[in-house]
Amino acid sequence: MPKVNLEQKLSAFNEHWSPKVVASFNGHDVMVVKVKGEFVWHAHPDTDDFFLVLKGRLTIQLRDGDVHLGPGELYVVPKGVEHRPMAEEEAHLLLIEPFGTPNTGDDATAATKVAV
Amino acid sequence: MPKVNLEQKLSAFNEHWSPKVVASFNGHDVMVVKVKGEFVWHAHPDTDDFFLVLKGRLTIQLRDGDVHLGPGELYVVPKGVEHRPMAEEEAHLLLIEPFGTPNTGDDATAATKVAV
Repeated sequence: MPKVNLEQKLSAFNEHWSPKVVASFNGHDVMVVKVKGEFVWHAHPDTDDFFLVLKGRLTIQLRDGDVHLGPGELYVVPKGVEHRPMAEEEAHLLLIEPFGTPNTGDDATAATKVAV
Repeated sequence: MPKVNLEQKLSAFNEHWSPKVVASFNGHDVMVVKVKGEFVWHAHPDTDDFFLVLKGRLTIQLRDGDVHLGPGELYVVPKGVEHRPMAEEEAHLLLIEPFGTPNTGDDATAATKVAV
């Protein structure tokens, strides 16, 4: 595989909440995503959910409190735990999920993950 | 789990080639490490090897060529592929490996991974 420059990958698209696959790792998609506004409350019953903030600020709402992340901060939402990501201003994230994981926790509403 | 500030975690130690666990994700250790100089040639027969450069520059030598990474660049060494990381100046990395993976590919020579 070629090396992956995250900033370069992020410059290739503008839409929000639409993760782009940049690498594969042990059956997981490594993805970048731009987010702004509120996502939906959801949980992933079979996988933890990895968030690393590359740029901007992200709030991960949990039923028992909020987690506030800035650049260089990461959080892993344990599998089965309901959460809602939100960002007042555009934020750029690195995400890692098993192949085929729907970003909303539900295949019917999930964004299609494409490579970039 | 609390959120993880990578810079803060990296400020808590100084040794090189000694990964520190900062989070767990789907059976994997998420780790930070400071590196300088040449590591050993090795391979991991059962796992891909994830490198993200947070600071500085890293070269991953492969038998068929070198990969040069700077901040915000990542590379996944596929399982079974021989490689040798090296850094002329100190570099800071995010690593992800399954629980218990020896960093040298060999339990006999591996660094002990502790949380930080």
